[in-house]
Amino acid sequence: MDVFEAIKGRRSIRRYKTDDVPEEKINAVLDAARWAPSWKNTQCSRFVVVRDKDTKLKLADTLGGVRGGANPSADAVKNAPVLIVICAKMGRSGYDDDRKIATDKGDYWYMFDTGLAAQNLMLAAHAVGLASVPAGLFDAPKAAEILGVPADVRVVMLLPLGYPDEERAAPPRKGIAEISSLDRYK
Amino acid sequence: MDVFEAIKGRRSIRRYKTDDVPEEKINAVLDAARWAPSWKNTQCSRFVVVRDKDTKLKLADTLGGVRGGANPSADAVKNAPVLIVICAKMGRSGYDDDRKIATDKGDYWYMFDTGLAAQNLMLAAHAVGLASVPAGLFDAPKAAEILGVPADVRVVMLLPLGYPDEERAAPPRKGIAEISSLDRYK
Repeated sequence: MDVFEAIKGRRSIRRYKTDDVPEEKINAVLDAARWAPSWKNTQCSRFVVVRDKDTKLKLADTLGGVRGGANPSADAVKNAPVLIVICAKMGRSGYDDDRKIATDKGDYWYMFDTGLAAQNLMLAAHAVGLASVPAGLFDAPKAAEILGVPADVRVVMLLPLGYPDEERAAPPRKGIAEISSLDRYK
Repeated sequence: MDVFEAIKGRRSIRRYKTDDVPEEKINAVLDAARWAPSWKNTQCSRFVVVRDKDTKLKLADTLGGVRGGANPSADAVKNAPVLIVICAKMGRSGYDDDRKIATDKGDYWYMFDTGLAAQNLMLAAHAVGLASVPAGLFDAPKAAEILGVPADVRVVMLLPLGYPDEERAAPPRKGIAEISSLDRYK
């Protein structure tokens, strides 16, 4: 699939077919993720591939409500054949060589690096016929407990993955002129 | 260009030809960036396209040293025909509807969203024959001052962009088995 077609055609999908996702497609999306650049090639991104039904149900319970109601991604987390949990190893991304924090982003540069990897992963998924939805509004420390994630690793994102069982229009996007300017910020 | 070819073929490049980059290619990469998903479609990412030589020189001076020496990306910032400065509007990404911070990432979710957009941008650049290098180790508040960035916007990344004038091998990457596991973190 053409890269621009993947970038523009990817949608956030919350309904999936029950068909299982073969190992080779999971490997293709993880491979894409690991090719993302990272802070000084420190490669902090980690991935838990959840296929176990009971674990998915427990993780779905960590999703927070939205507008006082249920999080619309909770059913996706429960029902997708696969759930990719994106994590980050701390103390690597965003530090200079003497381990001092070197930017004004504190120790949060891992969020940028996992974002780079997540975008590769979602584009690759779309290219192999899979759909996903990035879910960020959940109790990450609780999810860490469920998955046995150690203290030096943060859980960043729950990403349900499966063959799409709905079609969605692209939500409106700001135009290029609204988000960019020449030489000075405007 | 095929999406997997773009993902695997993109390299961080610091030497560029002096050839100017046409407006239509800049628009193609900004268009790719705006198609990235974002927290509840809040679209916090912003881009300053710097072509002014003096501004590039000033921004190059904000790059911190690495291993006690000069930052290897400083020359790229100075000499690339175009510099894309990736910024983020604060108070949007990572918040729920009543404006309370809803994740354990504080107000840093914008780093994830700008990461998603930056990856689209770098892949699109590679697909149209341009190279880039993500530079994060710089004095972001100073860069904000140079570009007239308002207080509610953070500068995240300096991204030199131009036609590549060097070839680079891919740095070593961890294998899929090193960065992933099934059902539990390992």
